[in-house]
This record gives sequence, structure tokens and C-alpha cells, in this order.
Amino acid sequence: MFGLEALELPIVGAPMAGGPSTVALAAAVSDAGGLGSLAAGYRTADDVREQIAQLRAVTARPFGVNVFAPPGPATPDPDAVARYVASLADEAGPLGAPRRDDDDFAAKIDALEQLRPAVVSFTFGLPARDVVDRLHAADVAVWVTVTTPDEARAAAAAGADALIAQGVEAGGHRGSFDDAAPGDLGLLALLQLVGAAVSLPLVASGGIMTAAGVAGVLAAGASAAQLGSALLRTPEAGTSEPQRRVLAAADRPTGLTRAFTGRTARGVVNRFQRAHADAPSAYPQLHHVTAPLRAAARTDGDAETINLWAGQGYPLATERPAGELVRALAAEARERLRAAG
Amino acid sequence: MFGLEALELPIVGAPMAGGPSTVALAAAVSDAGGLGSLAAGYRTADDVREQIAQLRAVTARPFGVNVFAPPGPATPDPDAVARYVASLADEAGPLGAPRRDDDDFAAKIDALEQLRPAVVSFTFGLPARDVVDRLHAADVAVWVTVTTPDEARAAAAAGADALIAQGVEAGGHRGSFDDAAPGDLGLLALLQLVGAAVSLPLVASGGIMTAAGVAGVLAAGASAAQLGSALLRTPEAGTSEPQRRVLAAADRPTGLTRAFTGRTARGVVNRFQRAHADAPSAYPQLHHVTAPLRAAARTDGDAETINLWAGQGYPLATERPAGELVRALAAEARERLRAAG
Repeated sequence: MFGLEALELPIVGAPMAGGPSTVALAAAVSDAGGLGSLAAGYRTADDVREQIAQLRAVTARPFGVNVFAPPGPATPDPDAVARYVASLADEAGPLGAPRRDDDDFAAKIDALEQLRPAVVSFTFGLPARDVVDRLHAADVAVWVTVTTPDEARAAAAAGADALIAQGVEAGGHRGSFDDAAPGDLGLLALLQLVGAAVSLPLVASGGIMTAAGVAGVLAAGASAAQLGSALLRTPEAGTSEPQRRVLAAADRPTGLTRAFTGRTARGVVNRFQRAHADAPSAYPQLHHVTAPLRAAARTDGDAETINLWAGQGYPLATERPAGELVRALAAEARERLRAAG
Repeated sequence: MFGLEALELPIVGAPMAGGPSTVALAAAVSDAGGLGSLAAGYRTADDVREQIAQLRAVTARPFGVNVFAPPGPATPDPDAVARYVASLADEAGPLGAPRRDDDDFAAKIDALEQLRPAVVSFTFGLPARDVVDRLHAADVAVWVTVTTPDEARAAAAAGADALIAQGVEAGGHRGSFDDAAPGDLGLLALLQLVGAAVSLPLVASGGIMTAAGVAGVLAAGASAAQLGSALLRTPEAGTSEPQRRVLAAADRPTGLTRAFTGRTARGVVNRFQRAHADAPSAYPQLHHVTAPLRAAARTDGDAETINLWAGQGYPLATERPAGELVRALAAEARERLRAAG
């Protein structure tokens, strides 16, 4: 089974569902010696099969596939959802109906068990024990995203092989098991707390943009650094044009919001995020409500109505090709560690 | 003038105003080879003179003194302050009157210019240019606490010799120049962003509890790690008994609050912090309102009514003597960096 010690470079490409993660980006990161990732979130199982086939057609290197764990049994307050939908009446675009689904979870697990990527990582919660067992039986390493020491202990008990320790700096959705209490631990505090709680290998995630950041998390005990926003402006990423413009301007802060999906996520603050700061915890219901609105805005190039997921370090993102960036950051990080040691 | 390169160990003891910082704690950190700090906040200038004399009586090592920069010209909304005071009517203890003061700033600067500690550091904003010039003329290094790249640029332009980069993980007050927009950058993101913005030496602050944390910030480019919560349970600290009990239990999260002082600060969440989550930005007015209430509660051993300042990593704090802790963390961090390099 794949282990982090097998990586040539201690770099993981973050799965960025909803567009930015592409086959080309995963291939570039893996070919450079890191671990590229496909983001299975929001895709059908057939889509995921197709992406894996495309990726294998261009690289023989190991890669990971990230899956959204299914929502828990709790149902969001229907009145809160209805009030939120009503509050979107003035938005100039189509809305979807609020509905619950599990993002095709079972079919994706079937596909991944069969297609055997090196790693399947989970976010939004724990996979059931039988899912972990099936993946292990297929020689697939199971990684779980955690944001607190308690989540780390639970993931270790569930059989995870490594943990993605996601600090509050990270862009996109928080991986918290319970969105009602998403936590707020910064990455460096999280690495120390999780390191004291479990002995699994850790992949550090959140705000890592430079060789200094990579060296910092490695020195703090992580086995690898996961890069998300650092890759958003690379030519291989599927980042939308309006989002690329906002990232390049680098003149606005990020903030946490549930406005787009009903789940806490970090994005560059825009009009929609400010206007709907009161969104309830209701994922995936609100995702389905706003998805058509966001798709239309993206087509229109309207950066003020789409989710601009980005981590706190996004102003340091560059347009360098992904493979070149991964190699440069790893080499410079190694140099920094050598100098510091 | 004192520079960070002169430190035997890359460790700074954080100034923790309101009790935890003592002469004994500063002496222990400085004697171990780090830079101990006195916290001038909430004290009179005469008190500060007395503390410096006491410290010099027990150590010949360099140390720093931290000063609250005076509040800006903006006056908090008197109605918001009045509403907040009214909301405290059910608290079982004495309240003070809301008032503005500058914490005896000018007299403290006079004392520090005369007594010449190695470092005078500022939090809550920039000292005026003439203050920086007077301290420099007295051969005193000037450090400024920053929480954003913009604050770092301003501090560099104001003549600071080094910056304390304070991540959102840190316990106690945020050093933000403007409490109305206190920012939320995690330490590792902040170090990278500030490192790209200015070329001053950086002292990293926020959630650093272990050798892994110290090694992490050094590898990420900091010249030293500032320890605050890591020292709170040491025998030399003046931490109150009720706070020590809560820290030892280590079973509650921290959160940001303005409830105690009207300025954003991080503490272990307790009843008061939860009950008054809506406190306005009004420092030092609210500090003076709640100070008598907190003093009475501290005497009563009531941990639910006092400010339990602590950073996100506080569950990792130990009761080791401060000097031993500083030496051990520095040695283990050096070992980690050697191994990583």
C-alpha cells in the first residue's frame, strides 16, 4: 500500500472540487514527484472513472482521489433553509431546489475499489469501517481530513493510514466532521495538537504557498505539505476566469462563509459572501440552491456572485506551471531546512 | 543596539499583561538564553520602573518590555457602550465606569528611555515616529506587533527594528492596529505574507507550544519563536489559580471575544465569554467596566467570570519550570531541524 515515504517530493496537490482540479493538474504534480489529486466531489461516479482513465493515460505515477463523506443523519432546520432561499429572491439568476443527496458516494466507492488509485482521501467526515476495509483490501491507502485532535483520534480509530491536517487558513470547504462546530485551529497549532494525539503520518494543509511554508510544516512534523491555492493560478488548473482575475488582484481578504453551499468554507470575500453572511448550516441543500446561480454568474464572468475559494495565503499564488512550481518549492524547502539545521 | 542574532536561544517569552508576566518569569527566560519580557500594560510607569529594577537585581541578561500603543482618535459609539454596560446588570459583582485612557503611555516611554531595556515592543498599534527615535537614541531596539502584511509595511516605515508576527492562534489580545478589523491570518500564512512584504527580522507568535512548533516557525523564516501559553502553567508565571485549573483541564476550546475589554482577544471559552458574545469594539472603555468584576471573581476563584486568555495550543502547556522548558524546546527544535535538513 502507498505510503508517504514513497513520495519523491513531500508535496501533495490538494483536491479542489468544482473546477480547479483537473487531470492535467494532477498529472503535473505527480509527474514532478509529488502526489497529484483528483477531486471526486460534485461529479458522478462515471465522471470519476473517466477522469482516472484519462489520468492513467498520461502518467504512470501514483495519485489520490478525494471523496466527500456522506452527510450525517441530522437534517437542517427546514424553516432556516426556506428563509435563506427567500433571502436570495433579489439575486439575478436561477436558483435550484434545496435537496439532500450523498454525492453518489456508494457508486464512487465501488469505482475506487475497482480502479485502485494509490490513495483515497475523505473530507467532511469519516468513511464507515467497511468502506475503509474494502479500500484496504484493494491495496488503497485511506486518508482522512481532520481539523481537530478529536477528529484525528476518531480517524485513527477508523483505520486511516494518514491524516490531512487542515488548518483554518485553508481555502474551500473546512473538512470538519460537524459543520455546526467547524473549529478554528490554525495549521501550526493543529499539527502540534494532532501530533500529540495520534501517531499517524500527517499531510499539512492550509495557507502553504512558499518554500518557507513547506519547510515550516515539515519541520513541525508533517510528512508532506498539501498545496491548494498555490496551484489555483497555474495554467493546468481549471480555475475560472473571474476567479483568476480576483486572485491576481490580491487586494481583498478571505473569510469563512456558508453562503454558497451551507457548509463552512473560505473564499475571497465578495458581494454575495457579504450579502448572505447569515446562511445556515445546511449542506448540501444550499449547494443545490445556489449552484445554478453560480454557474450562470461564472459564464457571465461575474466574480461577485460565485464562490471564490482561496486560502489565506492566496496573494502569493503565481502563474508558474504546476510541475515547475512543485519542484522549485520542494528544492527550496530542502535548502531552507539544510540551512536551518 | 540589541538584535535577535545576539540571542543564545531563539526564544522570546511573551509579555502577558494582567498577571501572568512576572519578574521571575522574565528572569527565568532570559537566564536560560532566551529573551524574557515584562508586560507594562495596565501598570503605572512607576510600577514598570520598579519591575525593571527588580529584574536587574536578579539578572544581567537582556530583556524586553511591552507597551500598549495608545488608542487611536476614534471614539466608540457611546450608545453601544451604554447598552453593553446595561447587559452586565445581572453579573454578581462590581462594575467600573467606562473611560478612556492611554495606560500612562508618555510616562512609560520616559521611563523606558531612561532605563534602557534591550527591547521595547509595542502592541495595539504604531508608536509615533518621535517615540521610535527617542528609544533608538537610547540604544533601545523597537519591535512592533503586527497581524497583517499592511501592518508590517507600516511598522517598517515607522522604523521598527523587528516585528512580532502574531497569528490568530495567539492567546490574549490581538495586536491589530484597528480592532474594528482585527484580521484572521494564521501564523504560518502570516509569516509567509509578511516575509514577502518586508525584510525585517520576525518573531513568530501564536500557538507555539512544542519543539515542533519552534522548529516550524524557524524553518518558515522567523528569527525566534515567542512563547506565551507555553509559559502560563510554569511555576514562575503569575497565572491565577482559577485560570491554572482551566488550563490543566484542557477540555474546552478557545475563542475570540471582546466581552472582557472591548478589544478582540483569545481566551478559553467560559460563561462570561459566551453570555456577552455581542460586546462592541470599545477599548479601553470596557476594560475599565469589567475590571472590578473580574478582580472580585479572581479572588473568589470563579473561572467563569474572568478572562482566561490562552492560545489555541494551550492543552499542550506543562508545569515545567520556565528556564528548563525554554532550554528543552530550543534544544529539541535544533535537533528536529538538523534531522529535517
